[in-house]
Amino acid sequence: MFSNWLYLHPYKKKQVFMKRIFNFSAGPATLPLEVLTEARDEFLDFQGSGMSIIEMSHRGGIFQKVHDESMARLRAVAAIPERFDILYMTGGASTQFALIPMNLARKGGKAGYINTGVWSKKAIEQAKILGVDFVEVASSKDQNHNYIPSPINVPAGLDYVHMTSNNTIYGTQFRTLPNPGDSKLVVDMSSDFLSRPIDWSHIGMAYAGLQKNAGPSGLTVVIIDREYYEREKEETPSMFRYSTFAKEQSLYNTPPTFQIYMFGLVLKWIEKQGGLTAVDAANEKKAKLIYDVIDAHPDFYLGHARKEDRSLMNVTWNLAKQELTDDFLKGTKAASMDGLKGHRSVGGLRASIYNAMPLEGCQALADYMKDFLKKNG
Amino acid sequence: MFSNWLYLHPYKKKQVFMKRIFNFSAGPATLPLEVLTEARDEFLDFQGSGMSIIEMSHRGGIFQKVHDESMARLRAVAAIPERFDILYMTGGASTQFALIPMNLARKGGKAGYINTGVWSKKAIEQAKILGVDFVEVASSKDQNHNYIPSPINVPAGLDYVHMTSNNTIYGTQFRTLPNPGDSKLVVDMSSDFLSRPIDWSHIGMAYAGLQKNAGPSGLTVVIIDREYYEREKEETPSMFRYSTFAKEQSLYNTPPTFQIYMFGLVLKWIEKQGGLTAVDAANEKKAKLIYDVIDAHPDFYLGHARKEDRSLMNVTWNLAKQELTDDFLKGTKAASMDGLKGHRSVGGLRASIYNAMPLEGCQALADYMKDFLKKNG
Repeated sequence: MFSNWLYLHPYKKKQVFMKRIFNFSAGPATLPLEVLTEARDEFLDFQGSGMSIIEMSHRGGIFQKVHDESMARLRAVAAIPERFDILYMTGGASTQFALIPMNLARKGGKAGYINTGVWSKKAIEQAKILGVDFVEVASSKDQNHNYIPSPINVPAGLDYVHMTSNNTIYGTQFRTLPNPGDSKLVVDMSSDFLSRPIDWSHIGMAYAGLQKNAGPSGLTVVIIDREYYEREKEETPSMFRYSTFAKEQSLYNTPPTFQIYMFGLVLKWIEKQGGLTAVDAANEKKAKLIYDVIDAHPDFYLGHARKEDRSLMNVTWNLAKQELTDDFLKGTKAASMDGLKGHRSVGGLRASIYNAMPLEGCQALADYMKDFLKKNG
Repeated sequence: MFSNWLYLHPYKKKQVFMKRIFNFSAGPATLPLEVLTEARDEFLDFQGSGMSIIEMSHRGGIFQKVHDESMARLRAVAAIPERFDILYMTGGASTQFALIPMNLARKGGKAGYINTGVWSKKAIEQAKILGVDFVEVASSKDQNHNYIPSPINVPAGLDYVHMTSNNTIYGTQFRTLPNPGDSKLVVDMSSDFLSRPIDWSHIGMAYAGLQKNAGPSGLTVVIIDREYYEREKEETPSMFRYSTFAKEQSLYNTPPTFQIYMFGLVLKWIEKQGGLTAVDAANEKKAKLIYDVIDAHPDFYLGHARKEDRSLMNVTWNLAKQELTDDFLKGTKAASMDGLKGHRSVGGLRASIYNAMPLEGCQALADYMKDFLKKNG
């Protein structure tokens, strides 16, 4: 990534100034420049078809290939075992919060929820609205969710155990998945999907919107164990059943074709990086640059999350001198950085450094932080 | 639209051959070249922000403006009265088929459905699954849906009357909306949305996916009378209630930002054409080019829909010599046309000529049809 350049405009036939900044937005978020460039270049004529990918029938051969290849590539990249189906849905995690109890809770059964903050709570609320019986198996509420509860004791016989693997707001992340006992985990991976290898052994279902690590907003990827379909209820409408998507390879109705295409490009890019192990190593290196500055100056920069539960995706911190926060943000804009304001529940600052944020972006932020400290420490 | 050109590639720094064909696909469908070009040109750097529109936070100022402007522009272009809210949802018409009975049917009430073929039937099926009481107020099933039932007698006291304004498969279209008596119409406008001015007087709700006349697939526009929200039920999850979207200007969770942006560009393009009256006139002229060839040669080309109920969006016909259909299609490909194969329920041929299909495309097809007849008649 380079922050700006001259672009020879195709039909204006003159050089146009274009810039790129380091975008630390929590999502929708920065995407690989290579992926954006490829999409731009073939936007009017996809593979010599004379049509844009977004103008094509989802039942035509060209799109079908893009669709099937993206699913095959996801299965390979994330090493998804055969027992799972890959589904392309819409409506984001918020819709899954309802679909999970509707489809996975058994009549007379009980579900489990791990509460690590806002997103977990939203999931719990929908189970309540639907009248599903559940138990909160663990919570980090007592300390404004600045840690990951561990170990977790899960009672026997639960229909599923729902959890959020990474919390964007507090900057916490399960570094390993907890053991759900005789049940299986249903994991909201929205904000760390495809950022590291996934251990599928305890997972019954995983889901994520694309808009952090994997593409534009507007597509929800669901990876679900086929054994769950038998729990579906007669009175559930077709579009709210996982089996509907499974039966028709997610082409029961018109899917968001642009997102599926972009997801395929991002998956290719992940392969080129060396797969999820390489991506994880890069993410660790990136996060360390920023956490190291925080840790070196604990009287000036106050990290929110407990060290051992820190997220590699979202770094959250406050300034000891809170009154300097606006100055800090103003300076980042001048230095071609954006999206660093913290979520209102935590305040302060947040750097979202998903897969596509280059090392140079994290380095630029770390340098800026050191510089800011020198001027204001 | 021109069918191909040399494109000065921005970083390969050489001329690249690009082509554009006439794409008669039923949807996702052809989009205005101007819109595609604008989107391409600002794909890496939106309005000097240094970010792509698809990388931006949906809660940031830049996207917020795109979002709000698109809603305001839709209200102006379609002359939507104040009593309606505009909602941006996902999941397509298929999801609405479930949400409508869930949210609009009253306990102990009865809904009405007009059955003009496949899409109406799919809507009816979801009402059945949900156990909603309904009556089929009219049907064109007796003649493979080649006509629009009229006049329609609607019993008093229905919760709503559901109808499909244009049927892509049979090529039929309500040229004016029917009178629903003391009820209101809920209109699936998926395939003729924004193709002509809309008379809102009998409408309680209208909805449409973008992917025919209005943009890429992945966004469902819902235009709903606010009075319906009071019918919502306690046990309905948040994402399945219209009021959730209304309360938060459709930003309750992350929306498909790319589609909203593209929809805004298409609305601007519609304004530039002269608005819906001008678009309607253009559509009438375009359709006439093809229907005239069919009508001039009724022994060779067999139109499917009854003349007075013909769609301006989807022209459907068969060849009297059915065995020539493959030859006909092969020839269209050679002439840079695509997407003309009929739906399996009707067979034969179908030309989808939504707003963005230029007059030249319809002229090219009409010329081809005359030529094909000369060779094979």
